[in-house]
Amino acid sequence: MGAVKSKRMPRAVREQQMLDAAVRTFGQRGYMAASMDEIAELAGVSKPLVYLYLNSKEDLFTACIRREAKALTVAVRAGVDPALPADRQLWDGLRAFFTHTARHPDAWSVLHLQARTHGEPFAAEVASMREEIVAFVTGLIVVAARAAHRDPDLAEREVAGLAEALVGAAESLAAWANVTPGVSARQAAATLMNFAWAGLGNLMDGQPWSPPEPVHEAIG
Amino acid sequence: MGAVKSKRMPRAVREQQMLDAAVRTFGQRGYMAASMDEIAELAGVSKPLVYLYLNSKEDLFTACIRREAKALTVAVRAGVDPALPADRQLWDGLRAFFTHTARHPDAWSVLHLQARTHGEPFAAEVASMREEIVAFVTGLIVVAARAAHRDPDLAEREVAGLAEALVGAAESLAAWANVTPGVSARQAAATLMNFAWAGLGNLMDGQPWSPPEPVHEAIG
Repeated sequence: MGAVKSKRMPRAVREQQMLDAAVRTFGQRGYMAASMDEIAELAGVSKPLVYLYLNSKEDLFTACIRREAKALTVAVRAGVDPALPADRQLWDGLRAFFTHTARHPDAWSVLHLQARTHGEPFAAEVASMREEIVAFVTGLIVVAARAAHRDPDLAEREVAGLAEALVGAAESLAAWANVTPGVSARQAAATLMNFAWAGLGNLMDGQPWSPPEPVHEAIG
Repeated sequence: MGAVKSKRMPRAVREQQMLDAAVRTFGQRGYMAASMDEIAELAGVSKPLVYLYLNSKEDLFTACIRREAKALTVAVRAGVDPALPADRQLWDGLRAFFTHTARHPDAWSVLHLQARTHGEPFAAEVASMREEIVAFVTGLIVVAARAAHRDPDLAEREVAGLAEALVGAAESLAAWANVTPGVSARQAAATLMNFAWAGLGNLMDGQPWSPPEPVHEAIG
């Protein structure tokens, strides 16, 4: 139960500190087990101030999900150049995704493990982030199919299913990589490209995917 | 709030009816929103009897997860003949998996969406089911790699990552198929084989996967 440290700290800054503490606590303890006392102490503020700023435990959790979902989608989009070929975009996007989830394991735990329970108000925040990522992957598959002149052969529903499979595989791998010592973001991305792109590519033109030359890479 | 219908019904039978009602209610409403009143009414028993038999809402939810996790793993194992080649085992296992999740959407919702929150006692039940399925898939990949004489080239960690990716893709596709009208279990399994096996196969010997002839198929 730390006291308020500085009355002159702007509200926005202090709110981010509360969210940092909340993401760590929710990510490590789970939503039910996390206590507002612990979050306030970790943030170095009083518990009433947390309630004043963020209203309730549920609203605080929702704010965490909203912030972390946005951070993840921004990181993935920033890693991708839409002018490049689809497989290169996917490779860059996967590395950005796994780099972000490895650097922010508590945030990923909040998004992946804590927030899927349906019927809860915060579930909609995660669902909307996931839809955005599925839409992005769907777009890549459509572009790749078009480039391979196989557009009429790849039905819309088939593309939707492939995008769901790829996103589910990435989610699962990120959770696994975060609890498996020594698995780098690059290795996780390479595993998924080997697994997925060769399969997708075969659907389109029978060519297995090959990784780009290391000299061109921006993300480690 | 129905009354006890028959005093002569064996306890085991009545308990299964309570679990049927609980799986449906938890699956459709979510754990938090589901009420014991609703579950008792749907089961046609009194609420005190539900508490007498299953102790608490948390214990009832745990019993649901345990029963449904076992049913799913039994269904997948029953669909697979260990004497067949690895790709055929995977294809049969995937069809058994998607057939089961399509027939029991509330059970799949309980397992996939409701029970992943970590820090909760019931999370361990789902984690243990998932580990069993990942171990099964890992075994198939190892067998396939051995058959292709590529064992030394496929590191243990790479195999583990591929199995995690495949299981995550299957989980994601099952949830999608259950909310997308007109997607059959067979289509979902075929999408995942197209996506995954060609990629895995390329890792091993560069051959894309081809579906078996329909005449040999046991699961629809």
